[in-house]
Amino acid sequence: MSNMQKISFKDDYSEGAHPEILKLLTETNLVQTIGYGEDEFSNKARQLIKNEIKIDDVDIHFVTGGTQANLLVISSVLKPYQSVISATTAHIEVHEAGAIEATGHKINTVETLDGKLTPGKIKEVSDYHTDEHMVQPKLVFISNSTETGLIYSKKELTEISDFCRKEGLYLYLDGARLASALTSEHNDLTLKDITELTDVFYLGGTKNGALLGEAIVINNENLKEDFRFMMKQKGALLAKGRLIGIQFSALFQNNLYFRLAKHANKSAKKIANVLRIKKFDFYTEAVTNQIFPILPNDLIEKLHQKYEFYVWSKVNKTHSVVRIICSWATNEKDVNGFISDLQ
Amino acid sequence: MSNMQKISFKDDYSEGAHPEILKLLTETNLVQTIGYGEDEFSNKARQLIKNEIKIDDVDIHFVTGGTQANLLVISSVLKPYQSVISATTAHIEVHEAGAIEATGHKINTVETLDGKLTPGKIKEVSDYHTDEHMVQPKLVFISNSTETGLIYSKKELTEISDFCRKEGLYLYLDGARLASALTSEHNDLTLKDITELTDVFYLGGTKNGALLGEAIVINNENLKEDFRFMMKQKGALLAKGRLIGIQFSALFQNNLYFRLAKHANKSAKKIANVLRIKKFDFYTEAVTNQIFPILPNDLIEKLHQKYEFYVWSKVNKTHSVVRIICSWATNEKDVNGFISDLQ
Amino acid sequence: MSNMQKISFKDDYSEGAHPEILKLLTETNLVQTIGYGEDEFSNKARQLIKNEIKIDDVDIHFVTGGTQANLLVISSVLKPYQSVISATTAHIEVHEAGAIEATGHKINTVETLDGKLTPGKIKEVSDYHTDEHMVQPKLVFISNSTETGLIYSKKELTEISDFCRKEGLYLYLDGARLASALTSEHNDLTLKDITELTDVFYLGGTKNGALLGEAIVINNENLKEDFRFMMKQKGALLAKGRLIGIQFSALFQNNLYFRLAKHANKSAKKIANVLRIKKFDFYTEAVTNQIFPILPNDLIEKLHQKYEFYVWSKVNKTHSVVRIICSWATNEKDVNGFISDLQ
Amino acid sequence: MSNMQKISFKDDYSEGAHPEILKLLTETNLVQTIGYGEDEFSNKARQLIKNEIKIDDVDIHFVTGGTQANLLVISSVLKPYQSVISATTAHIEVHEAGAIEATGHKINTVETLDGKLTPGKIKEVSDYHTDEHMVQPKLVFISNSTETGLIYSKKELTEISDFCRKEGLYLYLDGARLASALTSEHNDLTLKDITELTDVFYLGGTKNGALLGEAIVINNENLKEDFRFMMKQKGALLAKGRLIGIQFSALFQNNLYFRLAKHANKSAKKIANVLRIKKFDFYTEAVTNQIFPILPNDLIEKLHQKYEFYVWSKVNKTHSVVRIICSWATNEKDVNGFISDLQ
Repeated sequence: MSNMQKISFKDDYSEGAHPEILKLLTETNLVQTIGYGEDEFSNKARQLIKNEIKIDDVDIHFVTGGTQANLLVISSVLKPYQSVISATTAHIEVHEAGAIEATGHKINTVETLDGKLTPGKIKEVSDYHTDEHMVQPKLVFISNSTETGLIYSKKELTEISDFCRKEGLYLYLDGARLASALTSEHNDLTLKDITELTDVFYLGGTKNGALLGEAIVINNENLKEDFRFMMKQKGALLAKGRLIGIQFSALFQNNLYFRLAKHANKSAKKIANVLRIKKFDFYTEAVTNQIFPILPNDLIEKLHQKYEFYVWSKVNKTHSVVRIICSWATNEKDVNGFISDLQ
Repeated sequence: MSNMQKISFKDDYSEGAHPEILKLLTETNLVQTIGYGEDEFSNKARQLIKNEIKIDDVDIHFVTGGTQANLLVISSVLKPYQSVISATTAHIEVHEAGAIEATGHKINTVETLDGKLTPGKIKEVSDYHTDEHMVQPKLVFISNSTETGLIYSKKELTEISDFCRKEGLYLYLDGARLASALTSEHNDLTLKDITELTDVFYLGGTKNGALLGEAIVINNENLKEDFRFMMKQKGALLAKGRLIGIQFSALFQNNLYFRLAKHANKSAKKIANVLRIKKFDFYTEAVTNQIFPILPNDLIEKLHQKYEFYVWSKVNKTHSVVRIICSWATNEKDVNGFISDLQ
Repeated sequence: MSNMQKISFKDDYSEGAHPEILKLLTETNLVQTIGYGEDEFSNKARQLIKNEIKIDDVDIHFVTGGTQANLLVISSVLKPYQSVISATTAHIEVHEAGAIEATGHKINTVETLDGKLTPGKIKEVSDYHTDEHMVQPKLVFISNSTETGLIYSKKELTEISDFCRKEGLYLYLDGARLASALTSEHNDLTLKDITELTDVFYLGGTKNGALLGEAIVINNENLKEDFRFMMKQKGALLAKGRLIGIQFSALFQNNLYFRLAKHANKSAKKIANVLRIKKFDFYTEAVTNQIFPILPNDLIEKLHQKYEFYVWSKVNKTHSVVRIICSWATNEKDVNGFISDLQ
Repeated sequence: MSNMQKISFKDDYSEGAHPEILKLLTETNLVQTIGYGEDEFSNKARQLIKNEIKIDDVDIHFVTGGTQANLLVISSVLKPYQSVISATTAHIEVHEAGAIEATGHKINTVETLDGKLTPGKIKEVSDYHTDEHMVQPKLVFISNSTETGLIYSKKELTEISDFCRKEGLYLYLDGARLASALTSEHNDLTLKDITELTDVFYLGGTKNGALLGEAIVINNENLKEDFRFMMKQKGALLAKGRLIGIQFSALFQNNLYFRLAKHANKSAKKIANVLRIKKFDFYTEAVTNQIFPILPNDLIEKLHQKYEFYVWSKVNKTHSVVRIICSWATNEKDVNGFISDLQ
């Protein structure tokens, strides 16, 4: 039975869950627990994540998806007249159907070269907002990896973090694909660094092998209070909260979370390497599980007969940027097939 | 492994999913599909539900929980200055942490005898709101079964529906426990009736055997437009929308959805019958999977040593109302054990 | 030229402004000032009010009306999941078209005998809200005088204030008709008491001789920050903020504010006294500028031929409660005329 | 008595009201009217405006300021997931403290050369938004005159209007300085054109001689329903609605509204002409009451000793753009003084 006609490199959520996750869901299925994320499975998952972070004094909440995580965190952190700063290309700005504004908050955007913020870019926005006729920027939003597969170095994230703390800004990191970022060969950040350098971030599950689920990690003491009220109010408190808790338990046992991301990165790298050898350029440096090669349109057309993937943008009359995504579920046969179809 | 110390009659979401659901999730796990609820599994579930409803011209959307369904439907239907009418005991009024108000809308409540609305009660609210200094009531919210386990008869629902249409009010039915209502021995409504008599309702999955998931069914043509925009904006559009689609596929095959509810009702009835024989009174008539007997406090104390259940309210110094819930997962042994512990 | 056919006892905002106010507006008309309420006229008004309050360390902001004041204060004080407690008869609950809910907040109402809250009533709401499935009550809303013309005694307000502070609740007093309350013969509160016993309140101008304008007085240090951002965002920051500043300057010079209210009270009392002599009952005790006598319907019909006033509610087949309001602009001739028409 | 140390060319709201307005307020002061904008003065103002527009079938509502008008109109027109398109320099985007987002709506901005939108610019935004993962642009926001004093020609506005109607977009024109635009020597639009080419616009009073007040004119039948509910809910319905009605009555009698704007334009033009003769460049073409000359910093410093005005932006190390505004209240002596100080 096949639901798609073609092999998909379109995204990292085309399949169900990693078998280890389904297995644990099945094994625990008939155990009775209390609801709303206060069960022992969720608590165990919290402890496993804390062990990985190596910081115990954080609050961890499980939610169903990235947009839900973003709108919850942002509306929880900001006062009504405060705004969030992001790149013009940020997911919250472009691809969340106005979810942030629907909670009453403006997004102040800055043009960036590559989707990554810098202290300088943040300062531009901050300096521009001077009085009560304008919003008051209070939170900085970044993604790691970014929308175009790039990652922040420890130096870059430390500079942003230092600047935010100096300026009284909170820092929030969207980690929908944090596993892929942290397992990139180019990465020098640890999960502990991420936790310490931000005020709040989330660990993506949906795009790294879970059926659904993101783990919001709140490090800043000021932001911890009453978060569950926000979750309930926004429809984010699952009756069977265990569903996400069990999945993160599975992901954070035996290093599964990072093994899955490494696999995705490795698969993408294999394709990228061949493309480099073939002298294709890239829209952004290929360092995670999302790569953005620039291909001739006729090759794209040919590949589209067998494969699903996005055409990201036009470069010129003959070439376009495409997005190729590999995931925990990408198999070697399909990668090799794709590579051979590049000929 | 046991997560709870005691046997639970506390709610209908203490376990995971019915095994048929887990089985279908496992079987379909590695099939690649497109995301966000447009996959073939979700479409199949939609068709199966339509077959059951016997009306094809409805829109069906899957969401993760009841509060999410309620806030989405209500904020989708109402203009900014319009309000929703409910009983003072309604879930949206009491137990959703202000989710409806957070979307900008007032709930106009009316005192009822038993949590059920009537045309007369609705008219009270409607008549009271006369001009632009007040909100404009536009939507009526009811639950079937209600918060205290009661059901609407076909006559009652028809009267409400007729009144709403005459008065230009929309009617929304919260069906978190609709399966239990429709399989009650006292029920005379069909799913087709529910669809035709309301403008929009939802079929609860979370409390009837699914890991999570509710199916919103929109019958009124005026309310169909752009509902997916609302879902995305409120964080309700799952990347792996298939997760709920597959579950409803399983539930609506081989009559599973109704078989599970019947089992829950039957278990509750067995307990209720014994309580009646023992001459215990009930707070509300025991007709679905939630029953509300009035028990002496010392018996409650004794039962609480082995069983989890809520004390609903005090009656007097010696007696209290308790809530006993049976579910698809309640087993005969526990029911019999509970009954024998009533001695 | 007459805009109304009849003499009005309908409300206290049927005329323009007290002549002293118009005079000061005219005298200062061509002076150039900076905008948005930071002008010297507004600052002078602030100082005059502080002198009257006898507390200097308060923040004062001028807004255009009561609903605007209420929605600003309430949405400024509360976090997204917090609610405000009021009587079921409160203006914010009934007559502001959902303004509070439109800012995202629930109003938790309690039935009262007479529209006045008590610690016991507040505790009922507070105790009922126990966890994150419900809103978190955080602010108490009262009016002085109330919707039906009653006032709080110093003892009553002190008890409420003490209770709120003990329970971590904020207290907000809507003073649309505070001048009338404070000049009632039955009043034992000072403006200083009001300030000290509440966290924030407003001094009504619109209903006491101004063209428009209310002065929000914030006493609690925690509630002062960034209030002007809220005002700007809600459209409440007037370019010519001086318009309200100048009016409050006039009102708080030579005791005008309280003289106007005393006149209104005295006029109402004169009518009330005659009604008492005639053995008419009252719906609430007549102590301010709003009185609520119970009159026979045929007398109401007769009076309605010459006078505008509201029929508040039916008492029985033959009698109704009416609301008679006197204002700063009510003249003795009309009062005497009304009294003689009572024969 | 002088409230400012210097003569102000800073804005068009530094004084009170035109004397004709104060006169009419004084004359009508003690007439009793009903409240909330349904009085005869407000109705007369509506009729006078309709006479000027030469279209009778419009709805007219009076509000207190521009931000209030903008947030009311935009939140009234849009569904929760819909957005408004504006220039990046638009008042709603930059200078309203997030008022639009606070009503739940995103602003989609486009970079423009001069703050003026074109069909091409609007199409860019419209084409970019393709599905429910993004907001749905539905309303176009323009100002006439713009933030930098420019005006739309009949051809330009017609092209925008035609495009919007073809694409199913609503068009809203912010007319805070519409009087100045319509009386510009370069203008070829009539008030009738403005009405017919837009769906809704407002006529600014605050910046053209009123104490406060803007007149929202709704032409599109679909947008008329229940606007007063929105006004009440947002705190925009004044108890003494007559206050704005009377002012617009004065403004639309004897052509006062346009005479005041012409005076402002003429004063600005006189200064602009001298600057042109002196070979100063302008940031934007000087055609209304706001002009933006580029001056050497030492001249700016010298002028600032006697005059208030904004430095708009830096051009280079030695020159800056300044904003000089003339108003209905600007007197010839000050204009001549300023001109002679340019030497």
